[in-house]
Order: sequence, then structure tokens, then C-alpha cells
Amino acid sequence: MKVLMKGNEAFAEAAVRAGCRYFFGYPITPQSEVPHYLAQRLPEVGGVFLQAESEVAAINMVYGAAAAGARVMTSSSGPGISLMQEGISYLAGAELPAVIVNIMRGGPGLGNIAPTQADYFQAVKGGGHGDYRVIVLAPANVTEIFTLMEKAFDLADKYRMPVMVLGDGILGQVMEPVELPPLKEINPPPKPWAATGKIERDDKTRRIINSLYIVPEENEKHLEQQFAKYRQIEESEPLHENFLVEDAQIILVSFGTMARIAKSVVLKVRERGIKAGLIRPITLWPFPRKAFTAANIPVAKKILTVEMSGGQMVEDVRLAVNGRIDVEFFGRTGGMVPESKEVLEKVLALAREVE
Amino acid sequence: MKVLMKGNEAFAEAAVRAGCRYFFGYPITPQSEVPHYLAQRLPEVGGVFLQAESEVAAINMVYGAAAAGARVMTSSSGPGISLMQEGISYLAGAELPAVIVNIMRGGPGLGNIAPTQADYFQAVKGGGHGDYRVIVLAPANVTEIFTLMEKAFDLADKYRMPVMVLGDGILGQVMEPVELPPLKEINPPPKPWAATGKIERDDKTRRIINSLYIVPEENEKHLEQQFAKYRQIEESEPLHENFLVEDAQIILVSFGTMARIAKSVVLKVRERGIKAGLIRPITLWPFPRKAFTAANIPVAKKILTVEMSGGQMVEDVRLAVNGRIDVEFFGRTGGMVPESKEVLEKVLALAREVE
Amino acid sequence: MKVLMKGNEAFAEAAVRAGCRYFFGYPITPQSEVPHYLAQRLPEVGGVFLQAESEVAAINMVYGAAAAGARVMTSSSGPGISLMQEGISYLAGAELPAVIVNIMRGGPGLGNIAPTQADYFQAVKGGGHGDYRVIVLAPANVTEIFTLMEKAFDLADKYRMPVMVLGDGILGQVMEPVELPPLKEINPPPKPWAATGKIERDDKTRRIINSLYIVPEENEKHLEQQFAKYRQIEESEPLHENFLVEDAQIILVSFGTMARIAKSVVLKVRERGIKAGLIRPITLWPFPRKAFTAANIPVAKKILTVEMSGGQMVEDVRLAVNGRIDVEFFGRTGGMVPESKEVLEKVLALAREVE
Amino acid sequence: MKVLMKGNEAFAEAAVRAGCRYFFGYPITPQSEVPHYLAQRLPEVGGVFLQAESEVAAINMVYGAAAAGARVMTSSSGPGISLMQEGISYLAGAELPAVIVNIMRGGPGLGNIAPTQADYFQAVKGGGHGDYRVIVLAPANVTEIFTLMEKAFDLADKYRMPVMVLGDGILGQVMEPVELPPLKEINPPPKPWAATGKIERDDKTRRIINSLYIVPEENEKHLEQQFAKYRQIEESEPLHENFLVEDAQIILVSFGTMARIAKSVVLKVRERGIKAGLIRPITLWPFPRKAFTAANIPVAKKILTVEMSGGQMVEDVRLAVNGRIDVEFFGRTGGMVPESKEVLEKVLALAREVE
Repeated sequence: MKVLMKGNEAFAEAAVRAGCRYFFGYPITPQSEVPHYLAQRLPEVGGVFLQAESEVAAINMVYGAAAAGARVMTSSSGPGISLMQEGISYLAGAELPAVIVNIMRGGPGLGNIAPTQADYFQAVKGGGHGDYRVIVLAPANVTEIFTLMEKAFDLADKYRMPVMVLGDGILGQVMEPVELPPLKEINPPPKPWAATGKIERDDKTRRIINSLYIVPEENEKHLEQQFAKYRQIEESEPLHENFLVEDAQIILVSFGTMARIAKSVVLKVRERGIKAGLIRPITLWPFPRKAFTAANIPVAKKILTVEMSGGQMVEDVRLAVNGRIDVEFFGRTGGMVPESKEVLEKVLALAREVE
Repeated sequence: MKVLMKGNEAFAEAAVRAGCRYFFGYPITPQSEVPHYLAQRLPEVGGVFLQAESEVAAINMVYGAAAAGARVMTSSSGPGISLMQEGISYLAGAELPAVIVNIMRGGPGLGNIAPTQADYFQAVKGGGHGDYRVIVLAPANVTEIFTLMEKAFDLADKYRMPVMVLGDGILGQVMEPVELPPLKEINPPPKPWAATGKIERDDKTRRIINSLYIVPEENEKHLEQQFAKYRQIEESEPLHENFLVEDAQIILVSFGTMARIAKSVVLKVRERGIKAGLIRPITLWPFPRKAFTAANIPVAKKILTVEMSGGQMVEDVRLAVNGRIDVEFFGRTGGMVPESKEVLEKVLALAREVE
Repeated sequence: MKVLMKGNEAFAEAAVRAGCRYFFGYPITPQSEVPHYLAQRLPEVGGVFLQAESEVAAINMVYGAAAAGARVMTSSSGPGISLMQEGISYLAGAELPAVIVNIMRGGPGLGNIAPTQADYFQAVKGGGHGDYRVIVLAPANVTEIFTLMEKAFDLADKYRMPVMVLGDGILGQVMEPVELPPLKEINPPPKPWAATGKIERDDKTRRIINSLYIVPEENEKHLEQQFAKYRQIEESEPLHENFLVEDAQIILVSFGTMARIAKSVVLKVRERGIKAGLIRPITLWPFPRKAFTAANIPVAKKILTVEMSGGQMVEDVRLAVNGRIDVEFFGRTGGMVPESKEVLEKVLALAREVE
Repeated sequence: MKVLMKGNEAFAEAAVRAGCRYFFGYPITPQSEVPHYLAQRLPEVGGVFLQAESEVAAINMVYGAAAAGARVMTSSSGPGISLMQEGISYLAGAELPAVIVNIMRGGPGLGNIAPTQADYFQAVKGGGHGDYRVIVLAPANVTEIFTLMEKAFDLADKYRMPVMVLGDGILGQVMEPVELPPLKEINPPPKPWAATGKIERDDKTRRIINSLYIVPEENEKHLEQQFAKYRQIEESEPLHENFLVEDAQIILVSFGTMARIAKSVVLKVRERGIKAGLIRPITLWPFPRKAFTAANIPVAKKILTVEMSGGQMVEDVRLAVNGRIDVEFFGRTGGMVPESKEVLEKVLALAREVE
């Protein structure tokens, strides 16, 4: 049985079903339905919802709960996520699992509450200080919110690191019918490192959660372990969707809700005999580089990255392609969404070039 | 006459000589000599030094002073700079000139106080939310601190945007003889947009400093103006130093103090008959892409990016090279500095490959 | 069956048994066992313990929970209670029931963590701004903590106002055997004024909790209702203990743990044939004025107020006596406790005067 | 030459003329003209005006400036003054001179912005924790603001303690012609205890400003010195105005602007042959007890305290009179000001009683 559900509510309900029992946050449009829903829902399952006094406080509460071994999340939008950057760097430095949802809004600064994808750089390249990575997932519809939120908590625990889930105002506000996955028992992996209170434990060992490595040699050793982990993730975890790419001469690349528009453009231009396809990165970090190998897109002559921003993911596409194929960009900024018509025009122009 | 001066003091004195009269910040090692020096120095020239209650407060005070037309700066290190990301995005969104100095320390999280270059991504790709850019300058010695700090304030005013100056713990702490530039009168450009107080002004116009563009069309229009500005900057402002690149088969790329070590390696391998050279980006954004054209490095066969990080600027090098030449990376992390010997080994290995 | 219990734990357990389900606070010696105990205990009974980011935050969280109709408390000591004064004034202005425990320590300023009674004025005369009163209770032993904490919550709800319970470091730290009162069902009175959420309620009325009365006439009307309530409390609620006062020529007046020492002095001087007695105010506001009428102390010739302070309650004793009998004072300050011997000397000296 | 001046501006200008060079505060009606004026004025005389992020911050900045030996003030109203209570207690504990202006508004809680005298208890009995006193001055008109503000700074320095100056919304907002006192050189007493920076000083002694006395014996010794100081102040500094009291059977007692109404009532009832007079306390602490001796009011039969509150100073009047004469009270609350007509009715009623 399908139920109609708003994207933001899906982020919230999906978190609960993924075993998340702690939420700390501060309200900001267009993600306020996430805390609103969880304020009701978490107490029902014995969880804790707490509105912090600021986003800086919220992310540090997330740090605390994660350090104690809980499945914990926060959510916010642009300005609030920026305020969390120090905390996210600390989570990464202390190897703490946590899920951070960013329902992106128009920026920079106060901007507006319209949907964008302009926080890609912040999420993927690391908005905080230091050498670290955050896994970044980008669902494109309400059903995928459920699968990716569960994945987010699993990856966070598996690799002991923060996972960011990027939505945008469209995905947050859209109502879609969704087949709720059956409730299942969640068994997060044991966390023998968690600071759960020495007195209560049998082993009486002292467990310290920390990102301080005052001796550079030790910090480097710690970071080399992280980099080894990152390499493993880049090997094992990239996800993307191929859509009609095998015979495509023109490859569109888009993520999130933008990919839904791009997909419709692919279908429309195919009606006109133009061989187009779409690569939709689902993990933004690790970026699905193998999607851009000749094996995957054997006849591609042009790549068009389409984003709801001035051009950010396009850098990762170019890095993946490494000069082999020409990579162009089309985008709208400031809360404007590229329309199917203008993307179509762009594809038609490229089609003329490759003929 | 030369004087011996510590890097951090040079950042501070250079700011004063560049006409900076307002400093807001919060102490953090290894940049504490900057505020320490300015706490004494700014009142001497009629300026204001204020230690804020946090970095979040400091960057918002910078926003206020910049909005009123002042030459203003803050400085911090890693964690403090992360806390400023929301404010930096607001400065960019409101088109406010300000200078932010980051004396990078070991991260992520609390890390340590040893020197790194691991905040490159944060500085260059935008640590805050939304589509925006920050000019990033990277001096390599105390004399250059003086020229680049003046440039930083000039560029900030010229383009009405935040400028970040990246140092590291070595540059901050090193004492070097420096020929102080003659004191000159600073004439910042007029700022007819500054919110200087309607009552005091003849024109009585209302001036509003804001990053709020609630209508997406207007935000997009605003951002398109910014992007046009950014393109102009990418055209006019890139700076780099060429060091023996004309005949070089192996090109090292490094910035800041790392480039000093790289330069010494170039000289050492040349003694062995290996044609190596160095490109030192001085502006990190705009990245000096033209330094990587065939015209500038006609015989290059290999590029080796060397950083005090796990590899960040290397992405911009690869984007500039776009697959034309193989780009390799060597770096140390967590506060460790690549030693001349190990960089030399790496270059020798590459030399064997290109023979 | 008696159990050994520390005073601070008794404050905490007594609150739970009185139906308190919400605690917000911030740690400070010598009351830290109160939050420590409740952090464990409240979740067991479905309640919420939350350590706030400061005492200012804590008292405002108390305001919120009280506004929603909960039985809620906070506890702190000197400096923390001072930080709560704005919030306490708001609780009074908005007619909200809440219990505030102050385990008094040495002041002013940082002072020390030794026991005092020097916050009497702050508690009784109103440390916050505006015309308001707070009921103040002063238990003298662990058993009385149980009865007075229950009374505190009942009075708070009955009169819709904050109730303060004053302890001191001795009372907080002492361990005493106590007969735990049987667990009973607590039925707080209905709170038809509580802002419990319009949607959930049948009546759909809008309930506003506020202390804003922008029109002075309305504020005066509101305050006259409060003063009428205060007069009723002064009539109905004063409590004191008489100890051998009927035939006493010398009346000691002390509250809290100080009264235990005073009581021992009374017994000692009676052994020497001196007719002394003790009045122990249990409610500090309303002050038990009737305890000082001729009917209660028919042969009193001298009154000696003994406090662990420089002299504060003595003003209320003098106001009650109104010149009829001479009122003297003896006290120690800064965390020093008057010793039985020196109080005894003082009483002997008075005895010589009245002979 | 007289100039027209608003009360709040007079508080500000008087502070500057008394040598105050530092102001830290946070805006609140009805005192906002004080910071507004000083934001302009202090820089003109080389001083510093700083709007803090909250009243808690402001009072701690006052603490810092006072510790460094500066003449410093803050001003606020009701709620803001409550937030400062911890800081005021610390100022008292550390023996720091500072001036705090409270332009009282309607309370408790948010209340309103109309004038009251309902913060008398808070000011006089000590709103903060611990055994301490604050000198409290209450000017009644704009000219007296100038004399009492100068006195406030002098007393603060003389006795090393905080001095509060109580105004109300009427006094703050009223415009009155005032003969500005001639500008004179202010020579605050030397402050050999001030923490001015060891390096700059010849003596190189370590100076510590602190309110921590962890050993109770030392705290008591410290407080006994304070109490000795307080006794000296109670001896030397009480101030009051006598108005037609020598032959008065009915004595009105009022302070601040209330006393101006009371004075007009005295004149009106004297026209009807009723012998009334007025005692106006100018120092509220030390309270001018001697004004109530038989020597000062030889034929008084009734005392009527009139306040813009529910009755606070009346307690100090009763303590001073100690039952010798009947003390009655009349007041209005919540921002209402007793009208001359209703006070007159009250006096006429008393006159009938004493005939």
C-alpha cells in the first residue's frame, strides 16, 4: 500500500526506521518539517528530539550522542549547515558516525528559500578545515529517500564517519506516493569504541573520543588510516544510475531532482532521433568516476552537466573524464530551476555540434 | 633598512599599512600574534581592536564594519575559520570587502598546532553555502606578506568581496629580515554603497546591505552579476611564479612555504642534470590556469603537485591540465611537512619515468 | 525502614515523588548531586533531564515546561541563581509554577563552596526586577526536604508562582537516615491555562502565557490580582517551628541547618537555668510574623537572630517585632558556620542583660 | 546658560563629565538614549562605546574595564539589570568600582515600558547572591543627575564598589533646562590595585582581581573588611532632602520623581492648614535612617511612604522608625504613577486621624 508523503517527512520517518533515535537541530526553511515531524515521532519510539539554541550547539550535541554510540542526525539548510562546519570537521576527526541532512536553499548568505544544488562544493569538497571526507548521498525522489537514509546510517556506522544527505527545496516539499518499506529490526553494528560510561561496562576500559593529535606524527598516522578508509570507500561505495547511456552520443549528468528533469529531456530528444543518455550520481562523494569510462559510455561525444547552481559538480565530472571528452555545463542559480525546455535546447545545440 | 619580523606580526603590520583600521577576532594558536600585535597597534593609528566572544561573533562584526565602508580584517586558524563559514557566505552574498587570514594548523577537528595546507579546499571551493567565490592569496615569505596583504585589501575593495589570505604555522612563526615598504597614504576607493548613516550624508539616500533576495529571479540576476565579476577576476587577477619552467620536463607545483622547499629541490635535481621547474600559484582562486598551457611549460612531461595535505590543490592542477600531461601528487598530512629529501626522491623517480 | 540519604539526593528524589518530571539545569558545586541523581532518575519515570548550556538557558527552559503545564524544577547555587533572576521575574510575571532549589554557597562573586545563608535577601526580597514575590521554603533536615519539596510543588501549582527552596552546603552534603514517605500517586491540579497545544485540545481556545502588559492600567490590574494572592498567602501559608518559646525570655531565631545548632544552644543554656527558646521560620516568605506576637512569645525580653550571613533575615524579624522587643544579631559570613560555643556565649551575655 | 536636556542624555553626558570613558551595554527601552548618546560622545573624548551581545556580556565587560582601573559604566532597565545580577555580585566580591544605571520600567517579567520604582528591593537589598551591598543613588531631576552621577563615580572609586543609580521612565524621558556644570578636570584617585599590565609597570608586582576565596576563613576576613567599609558608608554617606519637616505632623517619604509629586502635595495640603512635610532619600543605600529620628521630625505623628510600586522602600522606612511612629503606604504599580490628587486624599485622611 502506498501512502502520500512529503519529502521532508520522508527524511524524518526514514531516519526513525533506520534506527535513528536522537535528533538535535534548529529550525530553518525549507527543512522545518523534518524537526517538526521528529518532535512528535521520536518520543513515540523512545527517542529524544531536542531543539538546540543554535546550529553550532546542535552539531555539538550530535557529536556527543554519536560519541556515546547512538544513531543520531541533524538537518538544516544552507546557513545552518555552514554554522555546523566546525562540528562536522570534529566529527570527521573523531571518526564519529552521524547523518546530516541539508535541504539546500538559495544562497549565498541569507539568499532565499527556493531550491538549489549550490551547496555541492561545501558538501563534497569539505566545508570544514583539515583533510577529511564526508560521504554524500543525493536522493532524487521520496522512495529513494527511504533507501538512502537507511544507507546513510549504515555507511556512517560502517566507516565511522559523518554522512551528508543532500536534498533541495523541491524534494523536501514534494508529495509523492511511496511504498513504505516494512518496519524491520535495526541492528546497528556493535560500537566497542563508544564512550558509554565506564562504570556500566564490564571491561572498565577507558574510551576516549577525541580529534586532538598534538604530535604531528600521530596525527599523520591517524589521517593515513582515514585516507586508507577513504580509498576503500571510493572503491566500494560509488553509486550511480545509468539511463540509456549505452548508445548515447550526448551524456547528461545531473543529481537529485535535477536528474528528473534531465531524464525527461533525454526521452524528449530521443523522440527526435537524438541519442542522449543520463548519468545520475547517487553518491556525490565518492564520486562515481567509473560511470565515465569508455566501458560505460562507449560512444559518448559530448557531456553536458546540468545543475541547479553556477557549476560545481561539473568539476568532478571533468576530473573523472580527464580531458577525454568535452564537458559542458548548463545551470541556473539563486533558486531558479533549469526548465526542461532550456535544457532541451542546450542538448539540441550539442547534437548539431557532434553530427 | 631591513628589520627582523615574525610572519604573524607581518600580517598584522601589513594590514595596518594597507589601511586596515578594524580587527575583530578570537584567539587561536598558531595565529595569536596577529591579534596580539594589533591590540597594541590599531589604537595607535586610531583604529579599533576588539576580541569578540567567539569566531561566529567576530565574522559578523567584520560584516558590520565592512558594511559601513571600513577596511576590516579578521584572522584565525582552522576551527575558527570553520565557525566563520556562514559569515563568509554572507559577506559574499552582500558583496562586502573584508580580509580573512587563515594561519592553517593541523586538522581535522581539534588536530594540532603544526603547519598544514589542508584548508585549501575550504578556502578555494567555498566552505560556506551557496554559489560564491572568495579570492585566495598565498604568500610564501615575510616580504610577500606585505605585498599580498596590501593586494588583499585592494582586491576586496575593487571587487567588493571577501579575500582570504592563507598562511601556515611555518610562515606565521618564522622570523625573516624584511625591507619594510615605505609608509604611504592609503586611499581606498570611495564606497558609495556603504551604509554610513543617512543623517550624516548629503544625498539622504537609503543604502541597504543585504544578502536576501527572496525572489529567485532577482537572486539569479544578482548572482549572474557576481559570476560576471568572477570571470573578470579569472581573466585579470591570476598570479603565479615561474621558476625555471621553460626547459623543464618535470614541473613541481606548490604554494606558500611548501614552494620554498620545492624550489630547493628543483635546484638540487638540476645539479644532477634533471630539468625540473616550479610553478608557484600565488592566487589560489583565481587559479593560475594559464601557467599550465603549452606556451608556459613547453617541454613538460610530468607534473608533481606537492602539498602539506593529503591532496587538494592537485585537483585544480588536474583541471587546468585537463589530461594533457600526467599529474602526480606527493604530500604529508596532519602537521607534517614534506622534507626536501623525500620530494627529491619523488622527482628522481619521475625523472626515470620520463627518460 | 530508614535509608541513609544525602541531602542533595533527597532534594532530587523528593522532587520525583512530588510528581516533578522535568529538570533543566547547569552544574555547580555544592548542588551537583541534584542533577547527577536526576539524570539517572527522571528517565526511569518517563521524565526529562536536560543539562542546558547555561543557567540563563535553564531557567527559560523551566519557563517553557511550566507554561506547558508540567511539574518542573531547576537547582543551582549562588552565581547560577543570580543568572536566573531575569527568568524568575518572568515566571512570576507570567504566573508560572516552578520550583527552584538554591543550595547556597559562599559569596559574593565566585566566593567558595562552603555553606552560607547569604542568599536570603535575594530569595526573599526578590532578586529580579519588578513587584513580585516568590514563596521561599527552608528545610532543616533530610526528612523535612521530603515534606517541603512536595509542599513546594503543591504551592507552586496552587498559587501559580515560582517557589524557591533554600538549602545550604551542609544540608546538601549531610547524610541522614530518612524514612522515605510511601510512594503515592500525585494528582497535580488541572491547569486549564496551560499552553498545551490548541490542536490536541477539545476547546480550541487560544492560551497565551505572557508577562507583557503593555498598557500600564492592565499591568496594574494584573499586579493587584497578584498582590491579593500574596496577601492570601501571607494569611494562610506561614510556617514556623516553636521550640520552648512559651516561657522563654530569650528567643533565638534561625532557619535551616543553622536552627539545628541554635536548638542545641537552647538546650545547653536551659541546663544552666536560662530560659531560652527558638523560633525557626520554615517559610521565609511569607515570613511567619505571628510567631513574634505577644501571644506566641509572652515573656520574651530579647531576640537574637543567628544566621550564616552578615545579617539578612534579621530585617524581617525586626519588621515583625516592630520595635516591641530588642532584636540583636549574630552571624558568620563567607562560608563560616557559627559554632554552638560562640552562639552560647552570645546568649549568656544577653541573659545577663535581661536579668 | 541653561540648556534643555533629556534625562537619559543627562545620565550619559554627566558620566562623560565625571571622567567615564568606557560604556558597555545592550539596548532596552526606556533607557536607549543613554547608549545612543554615548555611542557618539565617547569616541569624541577618546573613550570606548561597545554594544555587547547581551547584558550578561555587558556587565562582564564592565568587570574587565573596572579591573583595569577605568571609570566605566553600563545602563539598562529591569530585565537587563536582572541579567546583570551575577556580574554585580562579582563586582562587589572583587571590590571593583563601576556605575550601573537602571532606568526602571514596568515589571515583573517583560511588563511594559512605563515608569516604576519597583526595582528598589533588587537594587537596595542585593539582587545577586552573597553578602554584599551596592551604593544606590536616586536623582529626582535633570540637574541632580549631574551631581549624583559625578558622586556615583567618586563613591565607586573611593570605596571600590559598584554604585547603582536609579531613574525611572519619567526622569529618563523628561526634558528640563539644566545649567551644565563647568567642564572640569577629573582626577580619579590612583588605583594601585588595578590590573594594568605588569610589563608596563615599574613595580612588576602581580596584581590579581578576584572574588574567589576558597578558604572560608579568608572569605570571612575579606567580608569583614567589606562590612567595616559598609558601616563607614552608613555613617558618612547617607543623603536626604528635608522639605518642611520641622513642624510637620505628617511626613511623606518618597524618592526620585515620585518625590516631586509628593512635594507638590505637601504644598497643597499646607494651603489647607495641614502641617505636612517630605523626606526624600537621595541615597537609598545607605538609607538615611537619621532623617527619621525625633531630632529631625520632632512632631511627626504619621508617616506616609509613597512609591511607584506595591511597597518596597516602606520596609526601610519602618526599619528606621522601628515602631515609634505609624508608617503607612500608598503606591501604584505596573507603570502607573500615583496622582497628586490621590496622594492628597490619602494625606487628608491621615490628617483627620491625627487631629
